Amino acid sequence: MSAEVADLPSGPLDIYRNAASFSWKDMLRFIEGDEIVAFKQKVFRTLEHDPVFARRPGEDVPIEKMRELAFLRVKQLFRYDLLPDYEFYGNPWKYVILNDCLGMYDWGMSAKFFLNKGMFRNSIERSGSQRHLKYLEDIDNMTFFGCFALTELSHGSNTRAMRTTATYDPSAQEFVINSPDFEAAKFWVGNLGKTATHAIVFAQLYTPDQVCHGLHSFIVPVRDPKTLLALPGVLVGDMGKKVGQNGLDNGFAMFHNVRIPRENLLNSTGEVTPDGRYVTPYKVGRFGASLGALSGGRVSIIRMALVNLKQALTIAIRFSGTRRQFGPKDTEEVPVIEYQLQQWRLIPYLAAAYALEHFSKTFYMNFVEFQVGLLQRDKSERQSELGREIHAMACAGKPLGSWTAQRGIQECREACGGHGYLAMNRLGDLRNDNDPNCTYEGDNNVLLQQTSSYLLSWLHKQGRIESPLHTVDFLNDFHQILESKFTASTEEACMDSAVSVAAYKWLVCFLLDGSYIRLQQQRSMGKDEFEARNNSQVYYCHSLSMAYIELTCLQRFDELTRAEDTPADLRAVLRKLCGLYGLWCLSNHMLTALCSSAGGYLSGRQPAEMIQKAILSLCAQLKNDSVALVDVLAPPDFILNSPIGYADGQLYKNLWSTVLQGPEVLQRPSWWKEFCSHKPHVGSLQAKL
Amino acid sequence: MSAEVADLPSGPLDIYRNAASFSWKDMLRFIEGDEIVAFKQKVFRTLEHDPVFARRPGEDVPIEKMRELAFLRVKQLFRYDLLPDYEFYGNPWKYVILNDCLGMYDWGMSAKFFLNKGMFRNSIERSGSQRHLKYLEDIDNMTFFGCFALTELSHGSNTRAMRTTATYDPSAQEFVINSPDFEAAKFWVGNLGKTATHAIVFAQLYTPDQVCHGLHSFIVPVRDPKTLLALPGVLVGDMGKKVGQNGLDNGFAMFHNVRIPRENLLNSTGEVTPDGRYVTPYKVGRFGASLGALSGGRVSIIRMALVNLKQALTIAIRFSGTRRQFGPKDTEEVPVIEYQLQQWRLIPYLAAAYALEHFSKTFYMNFVEFQVGLLQRDKSERQSELGREIHAMACAGKPLGSWTAQRGIQECREACGGHGYLAMNRLGDLRNDNDPNCTYEGDNNVLLQQTSSYLLSWLHKQGRIESPLHTVDFLNDFHQILESKFTASTEEACMDSAVSVAAYKWLVCFLLDGSYIRLQQQRSMGKDEFEARNNSQVYYCHSLSMAYIELTCLQRFDELTRAEDTPADLRAVLRKLCGLYGLWCLSNHMLTALCSSAGGYLSGRQPAEMIQKAILSLCAQLKNDSVALVDVLAPPDFILNSPIGYADGQLYKNLWSTVLQGPEVLQRPSWWKEFCSHKPHVGSLQAKL
Repeated sequence: MSAEVADLPSGPLDIYRNAASFSWKDMLRFIEGDEIVAFKQKVFRTLEHDPVFARRPGEDVPIEKMRELAFLRVKQLFRYDLLPDYEFYGNPWKYVILNDCLGMYDWGMSAKFFLNKGMFRNSIERSGSQRHLKYLEDIDNMTFFGCFALTELSHGSNTRAMRTTATYDPSAQEFVINSPDFEAAKFWVGNLGKTATHAIVFAQLYTPDQVCHGLHSFIVPVRDPKTLLALPGVLVGDMGKKVGQNGLDNGFAMFHNVRIPRENLLNSTGEVTPDGRYVTPYKVGRFGASLGALSGGRVSIIRMALVNLKQALTIAIRFSGTRRQFGPKDTEEVPVIEYQLQQWRLIPYLAAAYALEHFSKTFYMNFVEFQVGLLQRDKSERQSELGREIHAMACAGKPLGSWTAQRGIQECREACGGHGYLAMNRLGDLRNDNDPNCTYEGDNNVLLQQTSSYLLSWLHKQGRIESPLHTVDFLNDFHQILESKFTASTEEACMDSAVSVAAYKWLVCFLLDGSYIRLQQQRSMGKDEFEARNNSQVYYCHSLSMAYIELTCLQRFDELTRAEDTPADLRAVLRKLCGLYGLWCLSNHMLTALCSSAGGYLSGRQPAEMIQKAILSLCAQLKNDSVALVDVLAPPDFILNSPIGYADGQLYKNLWSTVLQGPEVLQRPSWWKEFCSHKPHVGSLQAKL
Repeated sequence: MSAEVADLPSGPLDIYRNAASFSWKDMLRFIEGDEIVAFKQKVFRTLEHDPVFARRPGEDVPIEKMRELAFLRVKQLFRYDLLPDYEFYGNPWKYVILNDCLGMYDWGMSAKFFLNKGMFRNSIERSGSQRHLKYLEDIDNMTFFGCFALTELSHGSNTRAMRTTATYDPSAQEFVINSPDFEAAKFWVGNLGKTATHAIVFAQLYTPDQVCHGLHSFIVPVRDPKTLLALPGVLVGDMGKKVGQNGLDNGFAMFHNVRIPRENLLNSTGEVTPDGRYVTPYKVGRFGASLGALSGGRVSIIRMALVNLKQALTIAIRFSGTRRQFGPKDTEEVPVIEYQLQQWRLIPYLAAAYALEHFSKTFYMNFVEFQVGLLQRDKSERQSELGREIHAMACAGKPLGSWTAQRGIQECREACGGHGYLAMNRLGDLRNDNDPNCTYEGDNNVLLQQTSSYLLSWLHKQGRIESPLHTVDFLNDFHQILESKFTASTEEACMDSAVSVAAYKWLVCFLLDGSYIRLQQQRSMGKDEFEARNNSQVYYCHSLSMAYIELTCLQRFDELTRAEDTPADLRAVLRKLCGLYGLWCLSNHMLTALCSSAGGYLSGRQPAEMIQKAILSLCAQLKNDSVALVDVLAPPDFILNSPIGYADGQLYKNLWSTVLQGPEVLQRPSWWKEFCSHKPHVGSLQAKL
């Protein structure tokens, strides 16, 4: 399949497009491949041509209407069936791309779709057994609509502390689902607010002997599929407005002794016999395997955050290429991208987007490999190790992706000045919609502890270190790396990403060493393990995890830029992006450690100044490529939905016409009489003060 | 006047309140003074008891309704007249406090009120003359409602490039106001969207001889006060939804040869005679004086940003004191504020809030002193220097305040996990409403250039340096400071804010030196002044300005903690906050320079590690005080409007009951039939793909 890629409209951005050092279409084909380019075009075209998906930039939609629109659009997606199973198995990356495309359009809708078709359905498929297959059909034809109910009002991160109970009653062969009090109400459940007919409810399983067997999942009907009315015993409702993603109806539920058949237990890891005995029918796999299996959501989130960053950058860089302000003479103003400061604010995030693009894709493929192993019931040591490594990478990759996007979008918002604050230009929505990526599937700060534990586990390992994805293999040279020095002696030399990679290796070793020492100190002071770990996060374990994932992301990007099948004419710009990403990460986040080591890795003023100069030079060198680089990442205007970021670069025309097309924009307000009559009598209410 | 301060309700926060090292009421009285405490109570009580100001947390209000509510509330404020002139002149700080209080309630409303009563009215009073006094009466009784129309669609930062024209026609003794094209439409004007009857329009003044005399301001009627319909020739409308502050109706206007009387020119700096000659009736003051006069908005914004940060911290710290998650044993969970990481995320921002509280107040008083000089037509050298210094401080103070708030609110949002993402808990609104503080009255990044220019102007000054507010006096010891070294040798010693003050002095000198060298290098490479300046921002001038204002803010706080009339029992906690603020700023923003100077101010690993340890120790020491410290800053619950942040600490009860009180929370959606009938036929639209 070969995809035609249309030219972008001519306009004020031509000066930069013509000055680009590479062909954006070649880059697009190289990054996505023809098949994906065509698939994305299909999805985008479908949405653009169907009135159900019509919208206006910046429209003020009430929440109830947003929920309705998201639902109607999801229903339409059932009709389109954009990614049939056979196509998915042919290229599983399309699953991610579909989420990318739908999310670029609207994350609330995309979440609504994938929580039902992905998370709800997959959980039944994977955690259930033969007897649950009947549910899948009802999900596929939308008779049922589902949600995943894990977190409770008073518990999020500490999932093991959930307090909903499922008590088996052998006389009726039923489980009784109960919420002990409102603090144990299921809370934050996507799709539960308005639409879900069924929930996968996580509850502590009690057998009749009053033994608790821990958290298990159950299929619990919550609303009548014929009427959408709540079922008896279920108090279910909508949590109300969120900061963003309001198309998705997050909800809560309290269960008052709700009875469900015994068979509704999803029994892949534990079963209750009709007479009430608890048995584990399948052998529980290795710990690493179950850790890896939990990583799917986090792997996706890295990508979701990246998609937000890409759109924000498209808007801000196109804006900066056309917005002119000040200049050497009063009569002649220059595009704001010409300013060093604007370049320095935006272009490193562009480099980060390219680095994360490659990282998120290759990491997803690692995860697919792991899942294939799961399906094949691979019980090998390697499969288990792969699970541990993926878990460690996902627990730091999600923070890296979501925070980079959060900060990048904020910078883009500010870089567009006042116009960036107008809702129609979408930077506010991108920020608001991206925000939960920092929180769900594990709070970023909490997750980072998992990664550092993984890294610490390698520190005193006997024998050769070799992890399935080789992200920790360099620890074999731990002592040698700690002895190494920063050797680049010119600004030019610093621009080579090999310099950053080497610095990062030193940094990870240094922080690993420091974290271990810190932990030992805490233990030797008599702190228990809980406290010792808590007191070793800031400046140690936390920084360690971030350095590790930045290194991993950087290294993969570095390899791509050197790979044989990377086209020669794209290599130069990719190497610059990679060099910039490395130095910028290093200087932005890692100075603590670099500074701590004066007389260590860096010494004297010179290296730090060289790094700064190299960053500025790379920004300047990439400036003329920056518009073409976002053209590669940008969706069509209809999807981008931001007048200041449209491809034709007609910033003011697009903005002005969108403003004038707003509803009642030129009308006097409906409450005009409140101004014109009943003038206030100043101070008349002062007596009431 | 002595104010009774009520006790806070007993509850789960008692453990921290009882553990506090000081009395929060004493701190409140020390910081605010009895008169202000009473004034705030009056304002808050007024809003709380009047149904016009009723609201529900997280309610979904359409924009049109938000605009209406904001207007009705502003009208009610006219009736209350909360700060009559005599009271304002008695204590001008009350003007800021009134803005604080109204802004804590809702920034959209507060902006609507102050743009009319403050900015619009004051501009007429100050830039006009006797003949404009009649307008003031009409503003005071709300016959007229006004706005300040400076920025245009294609120009914001570069105010001198505005393109609206005002051409004098002597035959009619009128000015003709004209927008040459839509790119010159006035844009982003607060109150212009729906309500303004009059605008102060900035336009290039042309006399009949076709000479342009530069930007002047004119009173231009835009809507009929009797009908709120647009006047002929004026295309005026609402810009639509913004990221936040939607109670305020920002608007645009294009003028098609709109005629206004000659007298509508605000003529304090320039006048046109009836026959069309341009004259400057008053002698234009020194440049410094006019710079200072522009600073009012920026001085206010520092405070506005701080108010947002205070509310976010109140929410996040009360939440962290009651939210329990994990613990040393499974059975016993600890409040999340007990975690080092959570302390490190939040408590430095609390220290920043206290530092900025004192800075914003003392700086406002400096500005009042300057304004008194203006009113007294003080033409002294000192008055002019005071204007320059205030301008420099405001141009960096606004970035410091708004960015600290931006980052702090974001951290608070994330620190409250999922519940922080629920709209009713208000962290999203605080972030969205704070955002424009980074942009209006000059983009932060653009403003910082003004501060560095001021600082550079002192570098090679002959003779003794003494500025009116003494913020640059330390530059007398420039060379000596550059030779100085970090001398603290223990973690304990680092906690003294004197250590940070000394380090900052070195830092400012170092960056001043570096910025000068950088500029000289650029010039010697043949760059013109425009380019030389642009290429010296990142890592140099930009960092210099931030370091200078952080030093100034820190120094003032440091002096407060040492002042004789600071009560002894508050001194300990204030000194800790000051020590923490200093070290945290230093480590957060200034490592670039510290690192650059290995062998300079800091050397070896030890100092940086000591600073890190001191930061963590101070956070731990302040942990038990943190709840009492936010009790001092917090408004009443009605104003705070965030269930997870209410004073009783009944986190879950408040959250749960607010969720259940939402409209139609337990109802099935209005569109339930869309789910229950017309099931989609999967793939039925695939043929259309």
